[in-house]
Amino acid sequence: MTTTLAAKIAREYGTPCAVIDMDKVERNIARIQKACDDAGIANRPHVKTHKNPTIAKMQIAAGAKGITCQKLGEAEIMVNAGIDDILISYNLLGEEKMARLGALQAKANMTVAADNSTVVAGLPKAAAASGRPLSVVVECDTGRQRAGVETPAEAIALAQEIAASKGLQFAGFMLYPTETGWADAQKFYDEALAGVRAHGLDAKIVSTGGTPNLKNLGKLKGGTEHRFGTYIYNDRMQVAAGVATWDDCALHIYSTVVSRAAPERGILDAGSKTLTTDTGGLDGHGLILEHPEAKIARFAEEHGFLDLSRSNTRPNVGDVVRVVPNHVCVVVNMMDEVVMVRGEEIIGTLPVAARGKLR
Amino acid sequence: MTTTLAAKIAREYGTPCAVIDMDKVERNIARIQKACDDAGIANRPHVKTHKNPTIAKMQIAAGAKGITCQKLGEAEIMVNAGIDDILISYNLLGEEKMARLGALQAKANMTVAADNSTVVAGLPKAAAASGRPLSVVVECDTGRQRAGVETPAEAIALAQEIAASKGLQFAGFMLYPTETGWADAQKFYDEALAGVRAHGLDAKIVSTGGTPNLKNLGKLKGGTEHRFGTYIYNDRMQVAAGVATWDDCALHIYSTVVSRAAPERGILDAGSKTLTTDTGGLDGHGLILEHPEAKIARFAEEHGFLDLSRSNTRPNVGDVVRVVPNHVCVVVNMMDEVVMVRGEEIIGTLPVAARGKLR
Repeated sequence: MTTTLAAKIAREYGTPCAVIDMDKVERNIARIQKACDDAGIANRPHVKTHKNPTIAKMQIAAGAKGITCQKLGEAEIMVNAGIDDILISYNLLGEEKMARLGALQAKANMTVAADNSTVVAGLPKAAAASGRPLSVVVECDTGRQRAGVETPAEAIALAQEIAASKGLQFAGFMLYPTETGWADAQKFYDEALAGVRAHGLDAKIVSTGGTPNLKNLGKLKGGTEHRFGTYIYNDRMQVAAGVATWDDCALHIYSTVVSRAAPERGILDAGSKTLTTDTGGLDGHGLILEHPEAKIARFAEEHGFLDLSRSNTRPNVGDVVRVVPNHVCVVVNMMDEVVMVRGEEIIGTLPVAARGKLR
Repeated sequence: MTTTLAAKIAREYGTPCAVIDMDKVERNIARIQKACDDAGIANRPHVKTHKNPTIAKMQIAAGAKGITCQKLGEAEIMVNAGIDDILISYNLLGEEKMARLGALQAKANMTVAADNSTVVAGLPKAAAASGRPLSVVVECDTGRQRAGVETPAEAIALAQEIAASKGLQFAGFMLYPTETGWADAQKFYDEALAGVRAHGLDAKIVSTGGTPNLKNLGKLKGGTEHRFGTYIYNDRMQVAAGVATWDDCALHIYSTVVSRAAPERGILDAGSKTLTTDTGGLDGHGLILEHPEAKIARFAEEHGFLDLSRSNTRPNVGDVVRVVPNHVCVVVNMMDEVVMVRGEEIIGTLPVAARGKLR
């Protein structure tokens, strides 16, 4: 079964093709902005998911305070498009990056994260290049064991280092609590805050993150803002986390069934170079809306291996199906552009402007 | 420990950065061409790994008969760069793709694969658009259960359909035997060949594929050509398969250690948007040349999680390390460009021209 829109997408753009429904995108923006407003928390959406300044501006127009970027290259795209107030939630290091950060800070209000002294020692170069103070938040690990200082004592010490560094301003704390770790985060934050206050500093920004943490929004007493990323499109992981419905999934990969060599098998033209091997911890690699019991079992680079053994309905060669990816952020990053629709109508394309901006 | 070259790469380009050593690239090209020459098999390298016409032309200059592409978009880049004799090893379907295939066939000698009647029924449109006959090979599955007809009888029937289709020429068979499946492939091929000959057809092209099949090169009696892809750069999978040494791995990801929040942990600035989550069936996500016992245990999008618990040496924040990826083909596809070096000297950059050409 191929929907009328799917046939049109295949005819006009070919498959595999990433398609976003702008009605759903707008609804997702409004829903999360309202959740932030209701919780009294500023909204600082993470652009890693859409990587597009037009959508970032829609988020800001709806009430977002600013945006979050993971990489300098993403921030450069956003600043060049006229966006201000950007948090780069990442340890930035090295001469090349300090020069670029300085150039950005000269044009827009940047805040960066740091979790160690080496990073803090490098940042004054960027501040000096920009000719004005640079805000730095201390990244705190409250359970993910990724980046972030491990203890409130380390956070307090690093805050003092920042405050003592020429051209740097201690701006607060950045946290990324696990979905069940908000009590731990509160304890960490309270202790760190008391510590910096004892040294005459204060936390202007207390930033939490993660779309799955929608259910925890507002739980951190003292939190000032939240970084939502995936919510803009949503995906199978967000549905599994209980923070989105299938109808909130604004991005579908349209893919053609190119082979049905055996009754219980098939091949999609979307492989690991389209849907990526990122399972997000789920079984299978996406939900096929037309055949929900079919399993995308594994990938070659340009082949999606369909296991149809448990599927009540089976596609024919040439059918164009719609796939909700497991993890939409990495899938968008495979695309040069996404096609925009509203319901059944194609309205144009949007470049994934910051795609591949890894540096 | 940061090598002098790594420091230079970080300073000039920033990290994460894909770097290829052209001395090794040339050596890999020469080695595989010699293996093909020695086996009396034509070399038809697969461009999916490098996605760059300059390197494709180096392969052709060294003796390759033509090239292989997986997608039309890759072939368009190659034809526009003046490359002729291209096999698209994929079922192509739909009006949009037939128009593009026709335009390519008008400019260059194209061969396409098919494993079913729906695909064969569509191809005459492309041939008609090009104004000349189009060569079609029958894709045969000899054990991978991906695409490909399942039996010699199906192969024979499809060959007849191709031969009976206006504007199409049956050109032969395309196989992708497993590393241990060459006896099965021989049996399949012999039966299919006898069958098509009984119908007055013959197989001009008998194409096998896969870099790990280097050890089987020439084993198929009647084989005419082999499709090597990964050999151009090699990776951890090829070393594990016994067809390359670490010294044959021409591409390294240069990555900065950005966090060392705990003694047994660290974070690389290369996450799943750089190295991808494709493990290639191996443990860990790449070999760090400076710390071979360190394990890249998992990823966030821009974070590589280092498990240093078994590592005798541990990096400092700011160190730039070199990573040999598990599966280089998908990693190159994340990059807009690769930096070329010869030994310790940087000689320029090369665009990954067909990156993201999924359609």
